[in-house]
Amino acid sequence: MSKDTDFNNSIDFIAYIDQLKSVIRRNGLHDGSRAENTAEHSWHAAISAQVLAPFANEPVDVDKVSRMLLIHDLVEIEAGDTFIYDEESAALQEDAELKAAEEVFGRLPVEQGQALKALWEEFEARETPEAKFAKAIDRFMPIFSNTKNTGYSWIPYKISRQQVIDHCWIIREGSVKLWELTEKLLDEGVKNGTLNP
Amino acid sequence: MSKDTDFNNSIDFIAYIDQLKSVIRRNGLHDGSRAENTAEHSWHAAISAQVLAPFANEPVDVDKVSRMLLIHDLVEIEAGDTFIYDEESAALQEDAELKAAEEVFGRLPVEQGQALKALWEEFEARETPEAKFAKAIDRFMPIFSNTKNTGYSWIPYKISRQQVIDHCWIIREGSVKLWELTEKLLDEGVKNGTLNP
Repeated sequence: MSKDTDFNNSIDFIAYIDQLKSVIRRNGLHDGSRAENTAEHSWHAAISAQVLAPFANEPVDVDKVSRMLLIHDLVEIEAGDTFIYDEESAALQEDAELKAAEEVFGRLPVEQGQALKALWEEFEARETPEAKFAKAIDRFMPIFSNTKNTGYSWIPYKISRQQVIDHCWIIREGSVKLWELTEKLLDEGVKNGTLNP
Repeated sequence: MSKDTDFNNSIDFIAYIDQLKSVIRRNGLHDGSRAENTAEHSWHAAISAQVLAPFANEPVDVDKVSRMLLIHDLVEIEAGDTFIYDEESAALQEDAELKAAEEVFGRLPVEQGQALKALWEEFEARETPEAKFAKAIDRFMPIFSNTKNTGYSWIPYKISRQQVIDHCWIIREGSVKLWELTEKLLDEGVKNGTLNP
């Protein structure tokens, strides 16, 4: 394809992904003033990776981790956000996200689309040090916000400590340090009643 | 400082920057449904840099550009957002942002804080290929959204084509291709009445 077609596709893509700002998550801002959207969550995760890189279990290419986190939820434009504690939806979500990835990354110039889709697949597969660390950050963020906004998404869904551990133990694969903090935060959550024992 | 102090400072920083999600810009989402906040703008800019890198005037370290764009507006947590067409506020803003940079990046572990502050200064100085390209993206984003949401921040402030050119010609320094598109979009804006001639 011509350079001009590539440029036009890239510009269209930038307009297309603006929609991620309107995908609303169950989690709230730290001040509890409103629910968070997926675009600002992606920013927060990408910058947190930069800050927390020294505490990854293995040395990571931190810019690659940030890149992963910038794009990790683009599929939600097509597939919507799924609350990880909603087991039924989560089971259906995997297929929907695979289809969404074709649709989303297929809009880019071919090579670029393939590269970003491969990066998303790497994130999802959680095998490389970068993917493990990126997933750790991604799972940590809502736990952290819930401890700041006293259970914005925990209380309404009566989330228990065990549920969080079942879904978020993978934080440990990316950063033991972050997992130790997570366990402390969960204990506090149970203590102050935002998290079911 | 100990590794533990560094970790705690990093975690506190991640909580602190959540506030950027509550810094509201004059620009709107592409669908015009609401004003954009600075966190989601930073995400959009950082990912757009990845997508548009092939159209930079000079070869750039694109991950560095994304890093710049992730942190470029953190100072707004302290200094607030300034509408670039508000000449009076813009003049005062420079000092405020310098002070804010000390405050914001000073919260991080020393080495990391210095590195990110230097990155922000590089962005502001607009001398390196990465900074020129990052600035080009940053200035392009609101022009692009105004052409999608029919002048969300142009119409209320009666912005003119010349005002946009005076403040955004620097797009050309980062990407001639993006500047050519910008000129076309401005012509369209004048034609459809969202931008004053």
